[in-house]
Amino acid sequence: MSLSFTISHRDGKARRGQVHTAHGAFDTPAFMPVGTAGTVKGMMPQAVAGTGAQIVLGNTYHLMLRPTAETVAALGGLHKFMNWPGPILTDSGGFQVMSLADLRKVSETGVIFKSHLDGSKIELSPERSMEVQHLLDADITMAFDECIKWPAEEAEAARAMNLSMRWAERSKAAFKQREGYGLFGINQGGGYMHLRAESAKRLSDIGFDGYAVGGLAVGEPQAEMFETLEAVVPQLPDDKPHYLMGVGTPADIVGAVMRGIDMFDCVMPTRSGRTAKGFTSRGEVNIRNARHARDPRPLDAGCACPLCQNHSRGYLHHLFKANEMLGPILLTWHNIQFYQDMMASLRAAIEQGALSAFANAFLAKLDEGDIPEIST
Amino acid sequence: MSLSFTISHRDGKARRGQVHTAHGAFDTPAFMPVGTAGTVKGMMPQAVAGTGAQIVLGNTYHLMLRPTAETVAALGGLHKFMNWPGPILTDSGGFQVMSLADLRKVSETGVIFKSHLDGSKIELSPERSMEVQHLLDADITMAFDECIKWPAEEAEAARAMNLSMRWAERSKAAFKQREGYGLFGINQGGGYMHLRAESAKRLSDIGFDGYAVGGLAVGEPQAEMFETLEAVVPQLPDDKPHYLMGVGTPADIVGAVMRGIDMFDCVMPTRSGRTAKGFTSRGEVNIRNARHARDPRPLDAGCACPLCQNHSRGYLHHLFKANEMLGPILLTWHNIQFYQDMMASLRAAIEQGALSAFANAFLAKLDEGDIPEIST
Repeated sequence: MSLSFTISHRDGKARRGQVHTAHGAFDTPAFMPVGTAGTVKGMMPQAVAGTGAQIVLGNTYHLMLRPTAETVAALGGLHKFMNWPGPILTDSGGFQVMSLADLRKVSETGVIFKSHLDGSKIELSPERSMEVQHLLDADITMAFDECIKWPAEEAEAARAMNLSMRWAERSKAAFKQREGYGLFGINQGGGYMHLRAESAKRLSDIGFDGYAVGGLAVGEPQAEMFETLEAVVPQLPDDKPHYLMGVGTPADIVGAVMRGIDMFDCVMPTRSGRTAKGFTSRGEVNIRNARHARDPRPLDAGCACPLCQNHSRGYLHHLFKANEMLGPILLTWHNIQFYQDMMASLRAAIEQGALSAFANAFLAKLDEGDIPEIST
Repeated sequence: MSLSFTISHRDGKARRGQVHTAHGAFDTPAFMPVGTAGTVKGMMPQAVAGTGAQIVLGNTYHLMLRPTAETVAALGGLHKFMNWPGPILTDSGGFQVMSLADLRKVSETGVIFKSHLDGSKIELSPERSMEVQHLLDADITMAFDECIKWPAEEAEAARAMNLSMRWAERSKAAFKQREGYGLFGINQGGGYMHLRAESAKRLSDIGFDGYAVGGLAVGEPQAEMFETLEAVVPQLPDDKPHYLMGVGTPADIVGAVMRGIDMFDCVMPTRSGRTAKGFTSRGEVNIRNARHARDPRPLDAGCACPLCQNHSRGYLHHLFKANEMLGPILLTWHNIQFYQDMMASLRAAIEQGALSAFANAFLAKLDEGDIPEIST
């Protein structure tokens, strides 16, 4: 028996569920903080768990290059390595090969690329991706796919989708099934709905433990992303988790949950936390702005994170101006707390059949903008 | 009544005591983690307290330039600003003006210098230093002094000592006495014992709540530092705390405690934590060394910090190789924990009249060197 998924509530297309893995369960809709190289940047794993996060993501591409999957395995697997006892999902490496590696060469076999770290020649194929993710000991393994740029010509989108579907078959064949571990397929096809439909059908025929929508969050407008989800999600098996890769802003996530997505990952809260951008219930705040220098108020009065409980906007402003590590530490923590609080609210709203009302109020408040400046 | 100091045990020249301040008490001998710009770099204040630290140091020079003492005061003072409810000592700014500022001009009045941040012209005098430290709300204020390089010619050492003593008088006159707050004088005189003796006499005549030994830890050999302490400390008032500024290595601190020092501060544990150097019971370890890459053992098996409890040397090595923030976060935490554990052991040894035996064993183990490499 691989991992299991149970749906306890539905509200429109949205689902409230739970995924059971070898390392415990996580509630959906879920946001997975990104732990690229075996750490959610700037956060202790205990702090990540303390925000309510139940599953984190690790990056196959980064970890296979450094410290190598074999080293992680020698040190007990990724859970022990990073001291995250809960569920872990690893991506397949396909997306990072496209976005980070130099001199890629794609063939039927796989991808040959130069490491962005030391220029060494590395090969990644469906079989090697499965092997690496197995060595990392991921609870959820992603099929190896080719991710293309948006927008793409139809012929290019079709070629990449067809290759990805053949790779999905090979991923399934190479994946070593174990109790509580699962393999997700990835829907591709760019902005072409007939390609997306064909991809959904072929993935469903192969049979996976979950289905991801790939090739989005690569620069397309939100409206196009939502249109794609409206077309694609209903064609994915209903009884399996639906995962929208690399998304996104709070508004993206709310909209995608309403369109039937169960799982998300994105570097936005962590990256923004390092670049002085805080997510609040009233939209994003750039804490470097001089208006915050003597502001004694918390970043977001409703937030229970250590930043909002213990420190002023003025202090956080100072930390970023002085390039102090504690600035990114505190703001990353806050941003992950904001995302997890949002997910908890979405789950509660689905349970109550009140998702639409919650979404309207949440999005309206986001649009209000930051609290007014105070005179100091 | 200013702050008070009680000595409960003595062992040779060493003393076990407690200093009571407006923001609570701290046990001596004490090591004060350095919170230069209103943060112990890379650590949450709760974590600092969790290591056993009871007092931290803030830097007048840094804080007066950014965010300015007036801003800290507007935000409730340094305790509230940095969320450190316990005692805080601030230095006078004199040492940083010497080591960091550009184009200093020293006169009887004070020092005029250019800010290393924006080149603006700033004046620091005994009166302004007292004002800044008052605005910061330091429990322990340091007299403003001129710190010179080591070694210095006798005439130069005498000139600077005499100026510092006149400034000490002006510091005392300008210091606003409040319940639980105190002012420390700083002994100067370089490597010239008759100058040090004269300085001790003049400070004692002025009368302070504690006495610091300044102008050490500026590059002199440990033997010279110990010789200076042996000459100077007996000439400081016995019933007040003795503070050795900017020191030092674990061996420096053990030796100085045996020579009658009660308080220390040093950037070494925090700075080393950011540059991959860990303090252990068997000496310093450079975690970037390749021998650690697949080592499943903790950095220091006897340590209770989150790094040693939850992570392998291999993981820490990876974090530093990958330039992940969590490396400095975890290693800084460990190093501060190591220093606080050392201070707790020193205090216990003094209570038991066993300091000499403890020091011999502690220093011998430090000299053993790191645990042997394991084959992996």
